[in-house]
Amino acid sequence: MDFQEQLHTLDGLDSAGLYQDDFLLTWDKSADEMRAVLAVADALRALRENNKSARIFDSGLGISIFRDNSTRTRFSYASACNLLGLEVQDFDEGKSQQAHGETVKETANMISFMADVIGIRDDMYIGKGHTYMTDFADYLKEGHEAGVLEQRPTLVSLQCDIDHPSQSTADLLHLIHTFGGLENLRGKKLAMTWAYSPSYGKPLSVPQGMIGLMTRYGMDVTLAHPQGYDVMAGTREIAARNATASGGSFAVTHSMDEAFEGADIVCPKSWAPFQAMQERTDFYGNGDFDGIKALEQRLLLQNAEHKDWATTEAMMAKTKDGKALYMHPLPADITGLSCDEGEVDRSVFDRYRVPLYQQASNKPYAIAAMIFLQKIKDPAAKLHELWDRDVPRWQR
Amino acid sequence: MDFQEQLHTLDGLDSAGLYQDDFLLTWDKSADEMRAVLAVADALRALRENNKSARIFDSGLGISIFRDNSTRTRFSYASACNLLGLEVQDFDEGKSQQAHGETVKETANMISFMADVIGIRDDMYIGKGHTYMTDFADYLKEGHEAGVLEQRPTLVSLQCDIDHPSQSTADLLHLIHTFGGLENLRGKKLAMTWAYSPSYGKPLSVPQGMIGLMTRYGMDVTLAHPQGYDVMAGTREIAARNATASGGSFAVTHSMDEAFEGADIVCPKSWAPFQAMQERTDFYGNGDFDGIKALEQRLLLQNAEHKDWATTEAMMAKTKDGKALYMHPLPADITGLSCDEGEVDRSVFDRYRVPLYQQASNKPYAIAAMIFLQKIKDPAAKLHELWDRDVPRWQR
Amino acid sequence: MDFQEQLHTLDGLDSAGLYQDDFLLTWDKSADEMRAVLAVADALRALRENNKSARIFDSGLGISIFRDNSTRTRFSYASACNLLGLEVQDFDEGKSQQAHGETVKETANMISFMADVIGIRDDMYIGKGHTYMTDFADYLKEGHEAGVLEQRPTLVSLQCDIDHPSQSTADLLHLIHTFGGLENLRGKKLAMTWAYSPSYGKPLSVPQGMIGLMTRYGMDVTLAHPQGYDVMAGTREIAARNATASGGSFAVTHSMDEAFEGADIVCPKSWAPFQAMQERTDFYGNGDFDGIKALEQRLLLQNAEHKDWATTEAMMAKTKDGKALYMHPLPADITGLSCDEGEVDRSVFDRYRVPLYQQASNKPYAIAAMIFLQKIKDPAAKLHELWDRDVPRWQR
Repeated sequence: MDFQEQLHTLDGLDSAGLYQDDFLLTWDKSADEMRAVLAVADALRALRENNKSARIFDSGLGISIFRDNSTRTRFSYASACNLLGLEVQDFDEGKSQQAHGETVKETANMISFMADVIGIRDDMYIGKGHTYMTDFADYLKEGHEAGVLEQRPTLVSLQCDIDHPSQSTADLLHLIHTFGGLENLRGKKLAMTWAYSPSYGKPLSVPQGMIGLMTRYGMDVTLAHPQGYDVMAGTREIAARNATASGGSFAVTHSMDEAFEGADIVCPKSWAPFQAMQERTDFYGNGDFDGIKALEQRLLLQNAEHKDWATTEAMMAKTKDGKALYMHPLPADITGLSCDEGEVDRSVFDRYRVPLYQQASNKPYAIAAMIFLQKIKDPAAKLHELWDRDVPRWQR
Repeated sequence: MDFQEQLHTLDGLDSAGLYQDDFLLTWDKSADEMRAVLAVADALRALRENNKSARIFDSGLGISIFRDNSTRTRFSYASACNLLGLEVQDFDEGKSQQAHGETVKETANMISFMADVIGIRDDMYIGKGHTYMTDFADYLKEGHEAGVLEQRPTLVSLQCDIDHPSQSTADLLHLIHTFGGLENLRGKKLAMTWAYSPSYGKPLSVPQGMIGLMTRYGMDVTLAHPQGYDVMAGTREIAARNATASGGSFAVTHSMDEAFEGADIVCPKSWAPFQAMQERTDFYGNGDFDGIKALEQRLLLQNAEHKDWATTEAMMAKTKDGKALYMHPLPADITGLSCDEGEVDRSVFDRYRVPLYQQASNKPYAIAAMIFLQKIKDPAAKLHELWDRDVPRWQR
Repeated sequence: MDFQEQLHTLDGLDSAGLYQDDFLLTWDKSADEMRAVLAVADALRALRENNKSARIFDSGLGISIFRDNSTRTRFSYASACNLLGLEVQDFDEGKSQQAHGETVKETANMISFMADVIGIRDDMYIGKGHTYMTDFADYLKEGHEAGVLEQRPTLVSLQCDIDHPSQSTADLLHLIHTFGGLENLRGKKLAMTWAYSPSYGKPLSVPQGMIGLMTRYGMDVTLAHPQGYDVMAGTREIAARNATASGGSFAVTHSMDEAFEGADIVCPKSWAPFQAMQERTDFYGNGDFDGIKALEQRLLLQNAEHKDWATTEAMMAKTKDGKALYMHPLPADITGLSCDEGEVDRSVFDRYRVPLYQQASNKPYAIAAMIFLQKIKDPAAKLHELWDRDVPRWQR
């Protein structure tokens, strides 16, 4: 598909709501808005692959706040900012969940005098991460309205306790590329399943983000996990509502077999039980470190009861023609490689290594698209302009 | 005021002395030079608010050396550098005060081969911070004269033990904006007073910077603190001399009431006694950590004797019409919010939150102006050129 | 020499092999390729000194991976990237030597989606550093060929266990500048000698890099060290082969006097015995920290037997006219300044301070030249274009 053709997918889409707004949850965005993100992500990739500069900033700052460790999202965000002409400046606030209220209000303003975008990861504490972001957004709005900030920087969630929008958007791009278009996803069976991992406490926002987004495109989405590994109820409700609206389906099961049976796409990945994560948040809030240790032990034992939730060759054989697309946000716990028993067998992982890396390659473009649509009033016109002005990104 | 008019304030000012020189102490700068900094800060802000790029560097490095923690000054410096086209590169030398002589000489040259500006914060040790900067400057001069450095990067102090020029300049900009011009500050009563804080050892450079700068504009400046909380004698002498020259006044008192009485502007803030900071410097020099601990205890007890030095509503009521402008470099110790008893009552702080944030918003522009004037021979002509060339900072 | 003349040195050189390839070892590069690096380094310096922008990237990332501490190489790499228009993004992988195989493969791809260059320092573990780089390079190649990476970023070694190419290239530039041309090095006597240091475990890659490069230009190179301080046998073989091919000579001796006798150039510097470094690598591999401690003690004692290997005035007097060029990659252990007894007497060091700093000033340009030649197909044409387009780096 050439660039002009590609940009036709933007025709008629109403993405005005993204302009100057934050990107925190995919389900807050309209169908048109999500389609615009997908189209712009691919357009930015096309610009780069054709060595055309996509800079829309002559100078400017992209602030990052990582309240949890990160490698690939950190580099994705840095790449996205750099692509558009923003310099990344890290704000290291520490990992304390105590950073509330006044402190956040002050910080939000103090680091934003020349900020264009602020990317935040805060996925550690259930009930806190998304709230931190909306508080932050409110304080920026206040600061802008009071004349403190000459402009209001926009926020991009780099993962909260509820959603992981850049991950799910990158994953959706991967499906579109793999199956040849968004329309081709209709009727596909996608299994978002829990899988055993010897570590504990992995964030819920990955499965929640998946069921919240993938149900919008007419797929049959199954969420599978052992008893007791529920995700947040609100995200299940969103998924159910989406499925109804899109003509797909959404089901929850406690059988990995059932989810894999005939699936076109499988996403087996460990996560922590919602209730346990809430307990942990409370323990942290009370500074109860003995409680945290005891919880950790209990969770590891609980996990160990479900070692059969593994992506083995036998499981993969159950999928559509034995050839479902295997997805994972990485890094995976690979049996016999990174651990003794884990989420996925080495042979399965190895067979899908290239697609997995391609899946990950969408993330910088997904983030860049979100920022682009926040910052550019007429995205189609600007993309055409960037193509036509033809400034080489790299003078080879 | 439109941009052309604003730039008229630069007409006739002799700011040539700033070109290619360092900015370490405001009182080393002439009246014209300080006025140029103020005018350029506002002009750079106007450029940005009108979405005009202020880049004067196509590439280049702004090095930062933070020998003490910092959030807002760090982001201010990063913002200023980015605005002008410089990429920030942090040099993490550690917080040791041992970094002397040969090591500093070598470092100064090694990190400067492609440096345009070097911003240094070194406010921890009395008698050391400013000396570190002048030593650094000497080594750069040597390196440049010997042909090691193709150009001599300029220094910007981001706070030393004596002065905090970007803070006091930002504060002065705030007063100019609040009172409608530098001329309107004549005759205003400004109270720079100590205030109780449950933490100890806050730098002296904030009050010293204030009395060293604000006395130059015909204000009646009072420095108030409990017995034993003297600032460095040299800075009091500078303040006295400035006041005489500017037709204002400078007085020291041990009564917070006296300072607040009828004041137009109040700046109540904790700092450590000069003598104690000198003791601490010696303890560190001798590696006497027991001595440091004992000193810390003594200082906290000494502070606690002066809990009545607080910015309460009753104190604010004593000021001019009960409506003095309250200033603070932030973060403040707020009674009932960030501590049980602190520098300022929550209701006072809340009422001034927006002005406080606006005060802080000047710092990136103050630093950018210092750098601009160090780097641009004819600043008025260049600012006109930047306005007229009209390169959008952000292509919206 | 004017710029046009300078660029004539590129005429007829076949440097095509550098384009899109990695730069890991100088001895993997042809005579023409090394000459191209030297010429481009000086040309980039000329551009900068004439305030002409050398940006060849409108946006892009230069990733750095420092698996060992660094100040001057870190700043050199950051300077080089900035000069060419790349933003530096640090990847902090930790210093573990455990980072192998799958993890490295995944990381290599995950951080490279928008990377143009990756600079790696990994000099701590004998037998590991260079291998890490070639593994990394293989994974990037795989990722690019599989379509994961739209382009393959190029690697620049910032020091491995075998070679330190940016150091030796910077050193060679220093010799060229000092002696007035590469041709003038023919017949010069260069002494690469061990020297006593009170610390232990300094990398072997500096002496190895020197003998591997300096033997290519017709010099008489002597490697001198006490019994038991051998460098890697392979690098001695390369040096011997180079010397034969270039019409120079290469000799190993255990006498510092012999090496200094009549030398034009002396490079006295501490390093650790190859065998000991191999033991240390094994200890780390086995997590044997008692073994490491015992080894450290043994090495310090062993070093202390050779305190007479010091660059004293008496030793310098033995050199050609008592005026050999003294070189050191810095920081040096200076007797009576940074330690009681060390590599060099203070009076010697002081006399050569300016040349030493000039030596170091070549490193950013050496690295920039390596990157430039990896990224630009016709380097001479591009350099002429950069000169002629005359975009000011800094609008003064």
